[in-house]
Amino acid sequence: MSTPYELIYWKGAPARGEHIRLCFEETGTPYSDTARLENCNEIVPQYIKADYLGDKSTPPYYAPPLFKHGDLMISQTSNILMYVAPKIGLAPKTGDDIYKLNALALTALDGLSNEVHDCHHPIAHDLYYEDQVEESIRRSKDWVKSRLPKHLGFWQRVIQGESSGEGPWVYGGNLTYVDLVLFQCIDGVLYAFPRAMKAAKESGKYNRVFELYGAVKARPRIAGYLASERRQEYTIGIYRYYKELDVVAEDSS
Amino acid sequence: MSTPYELIYWKGAPARGEHIRLCFEETGTPYSDTARLENCNEIVPQYIKADYLGDKSTPPYYAPPLFKHGDLMISQTSNILMYVAPKIGLAPKTGDDIYKLNALALTALDGLSNEVHDCHHPIAHDLYYEDQVEESIRRSKDWVKSRLPKHLGFWQRVIQGESSGEGPWVYGGNLTYVDLVLFQCIDGVLYAFPRAMKAAKESGKYNRVFELYGAVKARPRIAGYLASERRQEYTIGIYRYYKELDVVAEDSS
Repeated sequence: MSTPYELIYWKGAPARGEHIRLCFEETGTPYSDTARLENCNEIVPQYIKADYLGDKSTPPYYAPPLFKHGDLMISQTSNILMYVAPKIGLAPKTGDDIYKLNALALTALDGLSNEVHDCHHPIAHDLYYEDQVEESIRRSKDWVKSRLPKHLGFWQRVIQGESSGEGPWVYGGNLTYVDLVLFQCIDGVLYAFPRAMKAAKESGKYNRVFELYGAVKARPRIAGYLASERRQEYTIGIYRYYKELDVVAEDSS
Repeated sequence: MSTPYELIYWKGAPARGEHIRLCFEETGTPYSDTARLENCNEIVPQYIKADYLGDKSTPPYYAPPLFKHGDLMISQTSNILMYVAPKIGLAPKTGDDIYKLNALALTALDGLSNEVHDCHHPIAHDLYYEDQVEESIRRSKDWVKSRLPKHLGFWQRVIQGESSGEGPWVYGGNLTYVDLVLFQCIDGVLYAFPRAMKAAKESGKYNRVFELYGAVKARPRIAGYLASERRQEYTIGIYRYYKELDVVAEDSS
């Protein structure tokens, strides 16, 4: 028996855990996922409650996703990905390429996940969206106008660059976990800002980015996963749809 | 000659590059730093301009800090730290502890650096502070009331936990790069929110965190560095002082 991979994350939306799930799904690697358990909302808080001090070899962590592999428990999406990806064929096992991949993964998660979350929570993570609607509209207009083209343009350059190698992928001519991260980020932004993303696609400026998105989505195991019950719907996680935030650049002036 | 360590970062404030500088300063490791060059503001943009595609083995990166070591060039603060720290004695060279340290480093940078930056830029990174003052006040009041105690309480727990080992440090009974990261984060928050941090210190709830801060600050090489011309002043980087944002929890209601 190989050591099991255990994802500890909330249920109810794909959110940050999804990047990790996609790695296991693409490679057909068995993994457990608290999101599939009835009592998920009792398990996860045990690890982050205000009096939890970890154990002899493991510090307490601030927030899920958490990840267990044997005696090791770690947190932070990008960190979990760079730990697990080389073990399941989604990053080189040796050499320094992993640091280039991690730089790219962090950039996708910063720009196309964290920044998007803050479009509906610009003032306070702990307040409801309804308590920061006006600020969210202002932020979303600016984000769609200034940041979205900057991020899409960046990824277009990455895929156009020589280091991306042959094929649709981000780095080195092979599918890596960063392609899956970027897919999930683009998928989330398509859900949150469909009007702006439609305009971005039709502009023709980011064809390589949308080609990568399509190439990941069409992979048999990914397609099977997305059609399965294991793929959760977007609800109130990182990526949310609010009609008043679904703006295009021309709405900003 | 050993391969030189080269930091490529803006001058004008400690900001994200500072976490990397502190590692080299603490260990007395030679490094170059574009912030010390007259033409810094001509060098850095070469790597991030909108038509730069990287080279055969290196993708373009989104933003500095960038870091060169021989043929390798990488970006992202936490990524650079986890690459370099094991090489200069600030993290174990083997085993999986580096993933625990990286989880903690990411948590400090998220909570006590990125979140603090967004206190003066809640609406748009690319707009001036003056264009988002009202939103910044609202965000800062909430941050000081809800988030600051949560973050300080988390780090207090980490240092109280068994995995921190003996002494004032975060993990394993030895100084690691995460202690330097946490020091720099606390130093920045002390600059940005002196009233709230004074109240936090006087509360006695976070003594271990302030002890770690003092222990790092008193280390001879760190003290020497902080007193040197190489240590830049806080100006308009991540950590800024605006009187109207210097609030305490009681200001929020």
